[in-house]
Order: sequence, then C-alpha cells, then structure tokens
Amino acid sequence: MRDKDDRSAAALRTFFLSEEALHLLDQRALPDAERWLALTSVDEVAEAIETLAVRGAPAIGGAAAMALVLVARDPRHLTRAALREALLTAIARLRTTRPTAVNLFVALDRITRICDDQAHTDVEGLRRAVIAQAQDVVDEDAAACAAIGAHGAPLFDDGDVVLTICHTGALATCGQGTALGVLKSAQQQGKRIRVIALETRPLLQGARLTAWECLRTGLDVTLITDGMAAFALERQGVTKAIVGADRIAVNGDVANKIGTLGLARLCQVAHVPFYVAAPTSTFDPRTASGAQIPIEERHPDEVRAPRGHAFAPATVSVWNPAFDVTPAACIAGIITERGVWQPGDRTWLAEHLA
Amino acid sequence: MRDKDDRSAAALRTFFLSEEALHLLDQRALPDAERWLALTSVDEVAEAIETLAVRGAPAIGGAAAMALVLVARDPRHLTRAALREALLTAIARLRTTRPTAVNLFVALDRITRICDDQAHTDVEGLRRAVIAQAQDVVDEDAAACAAIGAHGAPLFDDGDVVLTICHTGALATCGQGTALGVLKSAQQQGKRIRVIALETRPLLQGARLTAWECLRTGLDVTLITDGMAAFALERQGVTKAIVGADRIAVNGDVANKIGTLGLARLCQVAHVPFYVAAPTSTFDPRTASGAQIPIEERHPDEVRAPRGHAFAPATVSVWNPAFDVTPAACIAGIITERGVWQPGDRTWLAEHLA
Repeated sequence: MRDKDDRSAAALRTFFLSEEALHLLDQRALPDAERWLALTSVDEVAEAIETLAVRGAPAIGGAAAMALVLVARDPRHLTRAALREALLTAIARLRTTRPTAVNLFVALDRITRICDDQAHTDVEGLRRAVIAQAQDVVDEDAAACAAIGAHGAPLFDDGDVVLTICHTGALATCGQGTALGVLKSAQQQGKRIRVIALETRPLLQGARLTAWECLRTGLDVTLITDGMAAFALERQGVTKAIVGADRIAVNGDVANKIGTLGLARLCQVAHVPFYVAAPTSTFDPRTASGAQIPIEERHPDEVRAPRGHAFAPATVSVWNPAFDVTPAACIAGIITERGVWQPGDRTWLAEHLA
Repeated sequence: MRDKDDRSAAALRTFFLSEEALHLLDQRALPDAERWLALTSVDEVAEAIETLAVRGAPAIGGAAAMALVLVARDPRHLTRAALREALLTAIARLRTTRPTAVNLFVALDRITRICDDQAHTDVEGLRRAVIAQAQDVVDEDAAACAAIGAHGAPLFDDGDVVLTICHTGALATCGQGTALGVLKSAQQQGKRIRVIALETRPLLQGARLTAWECLRTGLDVTLITDGMAAFALERQGVTKAIVGADRIAVNGDVANKIGTLGLARLCQVAHVPFYVAAPTSTFDPRTASGAQIPIEERHPDEVRAPRGHAFAPATVSVWNPAFDVTPAACIAGIITERGVWQPGDRTWLAEHLA
C-alpha cells in the first residue's frame, strides 16, 4: 500500500490507502484544485465512483478493490461468516455504481471467489486473502501500465513531438497510465518528449486532466483545440501520435474517444506514425471488426453547454457520439503489456491473446 | 434602407437604419438573447465595432457607412463646410476601431472622396451624396452575397448533407452571407439541405452564431464538435463541405478559420467535394501562395478559458493560431460573386480578377 510520501511527481496515483482511509484524488475538482477525499466506508467509495470523483476503467476497478480492503480490515467483523456477509453486501453495493467498464466487475468477481473459497477457514485467513487479492488487482494494473511503457518507449525518440487525445494517464489507471504512460517511460529513458494534447471536446479530458497530469508529472505539454491538429502536424514538427483505446476488435480496428479517427486519418495523410496503447483486457475476441462496436451517443448538452456553461442555442440539434472507430490500416502498432501488435498480424494475436 | 418589418427569417440582417437610429443586433448577447441596440451617434457605432457587438469584415464596413449616414442627415449641420468637418471627424474616429479588416477602410475612403468632391457644392448636395454612397457600400456587399449564392447554389443538390465551420452568414456581412448564403440560395431553389456545423473552437462561432442563424432562418442544422468531423463523414452521410475565406492566394491556397485545413483534408480522404465561398475582395494578388500568409496567434486564454470559463490549468502552454491554410489541391471550387474559380485555372483568374 502506498502512503502520502509516495505522492511525488513520478509516482502520481489517483488513490492510495492509509491506516485511516482510502485517499482519492477528486477528479471533479481538477484542474482547479488538487483535492483529496478521505473515504472510510464502502458507501463513500461507491458514491465517489458514481459521481465521477474517480473515473477511468482500471482506476474504478482498483478503487472498488480498495473499498473491500476497508471492510476486510474492520476489526468489528469477529467471525468468518460475519466478514463474508459484510464483504458480499459491499460487493453488491459496488456492483451498482457504473454499468459499463468491465474492470469493476472483474475485480469484484475476484474478491467474491475469495469469499467462497473454503480454504480460508477462519476470519483472519479470509481477511488476509481478501486484502492480498485486492492488492493484486491494483498491482497487476500498475504492472500492466509499466509493461506497456516498457514495450512502447523504444518506439519513441529523443526530440519527438507527440500528439495525443483524451486522458490516458495515471488518473485513469492504478499505474502510470497507458498512452501517456508510454511517453513517461520514454522520458524516463532520457528522451526529450514534447506532448501536444488535444483538448478533447465535448468533455475536455485533454484540457482538464491530461494538461494537469503533464504539468504535475513534468511532461512538456502544449494544449490545442481539436481543430488545430492538422495545422499542428504542418507547423509544430509533430513526429508521432499515441492514444488509448476503449475496445479493440479482432481485425485491429480501435474504438476510442471521439476525435481519434480524425487524428488518425490526418496522421496517415502526413505520414506520421499513429500508435495505440492499451492493456490486452481491452481486446474483445467477440468483435470481428470496428463496424460491430456499438457507439454510445450522449446528451446534447455536453456539446451545447460544456460543464454547465451554455454556448450554443438550447434548442439546436446535436450529434454527440462518445467514441469513434479508427480502422486498423491507420494504426502503426497497438502497444500492450505483452508486446506490440501490428494490426493484421494474426500470428501475434493467436500467440498473445489466445 | 430597411425597417423593422423587414426582419423576417429570409431577410435576417445584422443592422438596419430607421428614422431614429442605426439598429444593430448585439452579437455579444447571442445566442442567449436577440438584443437590438439603437445607436444614434458615431461614437456609439464605433464602440459597437470595438466591443464586437458587430463583427465580420463586410458587416463592420457596412455599419461604419451607416454611422456616417447618421452624421449626414443630422439637420444641425447647416453649411457644406460644417457637414464636411463633422464627417471627417467621424471618419477619423471610425478608423481607430479595428485594425485588420480591409472593408472598413475601403468604406471610409469612399465617403472621404465624396467629402472632397467639389461637385457637391451645397450642404444638401453633400448630404444626399454621402447617404447614397453609404447605401452603395451596403447594397454592393448584399449584391455580392446574392451573386455568390446564385453561382454556388447549382453546385448543391436536393438532399445534400453539408459540413461547415465558423460563421459565414448574414451576421458577418450586409447580405445573406457567403458560405452559409450559398446554402440559403440552394434551399430557396427548393433543395433540402442539411447543415452540420462544427462548433469552431476556440471562439465557438459555429456553436454561437451559425447554429443561431440557421435556427433563425430555417436551415436544418446539427451542431457537432470539431473532432467529430471525421466520424460525421462516415456516419452522417455527408456529401459536401463549404467554408468561407479570410485571404486567398494567387495559387488558390485559402487562409480561413483554424480547423478548416483538417476539415478539407478529411473531405479529400473521403472524396467529398470541399468548396470555399468568398467575395473577390478576399483575393490577394500580392500573395503567391499560402506559405506567405502571416498567421495571427491569439491569447492562450481563448483555449484555456472559453468565454471566461476556465477548463484547463491556468499555467499550461497553449498554441492558438487563429487561422490555418488549406492547399488549393483540397478545394473543389472557390465560389465568388463573379463565378466559380477552379484553383489553378490561371485563365479564369486573369479574366475575372485582373
């Protein structure tokens, strides 16, 4: 478990456990304030997930696992049966927080299996097993981020100028992040990397979170609007682009934050390599191609009135897809914790994602 | 001169003159409120130009001309000399309002020449000549818009779905607008046109002005963020794109609002015709190619804190070019009041823009 001293620039985490509480960086307050919540109950953690104080699929899974540590180490549960009952109640509560991200359910299922494992015959045994399993959830994601960084960093060179979209850093994971994590790893190898972050309308994750995290962790960052990407490719010496992924199809098509497709096509026209960084858990073996990925369309007010500030007429029609689909042909490589996949390489796929 | 009854949907104007005042639609209040200012002095008009109550180069020139009508018809000027003195003082004041748009200075120069014309020997003669010349400034721009519409409308078909960026409508001109005017003309021919307006970060002219004007004038409009253009080309059945221009080089390269270049390249990849609509006064015979066009870079807070609402960290670096340059090779045609120019056609250029 991390403590406050570990909150150095390099070790930025979105949450850490102390003896008193789960400390969670309130992402709703960013970038205006770096406010930490001290959560002491499952209900408080559940509410933090529901209200987006913590977001990003791996970060949500990790926060839920840490909530179960709060239950497991509570000395008021005196018997194995009482502790198991409290854990299952907590798991049921956490299950209702967010419906989409698979990481949350994977984490909760893992702790459920511990509760049902007859090997842990007494309360102390169950306590230790749950805490260990919860820590594994967090540590495995952190390790996946580190491995993505290790596989990705060699693809970047000293002096690279790198376009990115949305937020793919520590705040969204239990480690250093995915796409942004690769750039951190490259920088840690002594390479000078200049990040150009697209603000990422409508929800402005680039302006709010990526800009903040780069400043916080010492990455050289310049913020632009999404419509400036084409001109930046011509006038800012852009050499590469890297983004995250929400779902990856078998043929290598990638669903990611809206705006990714345009960025990928512009990079292709400009002959600038366009990379994707994501854990293999993002790969969906049941989706043959991007055409089959359902695209969530969200509320028009996200476009008309960002963060409550109305810019457009309240009655104007809006099309607001949350994601788009980038064809595999635009992608130079998909960087995973198991190595770099060239979309289309079925052999690599069979060997690494079987 | 127009009066209030002329403010129907089809005849939307950004200003009109009554017997009492110059009535000017306050663009700072849009789209929240349709507030009309009643300006009775040159100072009030100058301030309206300075504070962006009226913006758009042709609209500024027209508003300045109308300010001089206020002076010319003031019965307190009893002699030709007194009226000439008042006009020259007003012209000097209006010259200080905005430095860039050429239309303002062209309009003021035209009235200056009337003041210096010895043919107008008495106060009534000068009065009539100034009013006539000022009205010509407005009418000629309105006629140019109409001619652009007439030349451009045949390029659009019933059922077209058309991407556009920034604001190119009546509010920016003395007529129906340029690119948006073409779509109005096409619709008036009975063609059903669906407009997809990019919001146009950082200053949001698409969200604020184009969305409002389309709703106000009965054009079917859907608002999207700039980063959605590529996905809209795939999923919204886009058939064409049309934009305005800030400066056009001899080789047909076009400087226009930031975001135009990306839209043009995405249209090229998607084989969607990309048109530019602008009066020939936008053509600059001294600029051989787009590489020579200086690009204004504006304040970082336009990106970090749109309309005063801070989204990004206050200290993050920003690159904020106000315009970009679209190569002629991306442009299917430049629609002017003298016809449609295929960039590269030097014969047309010599015949129409000599």
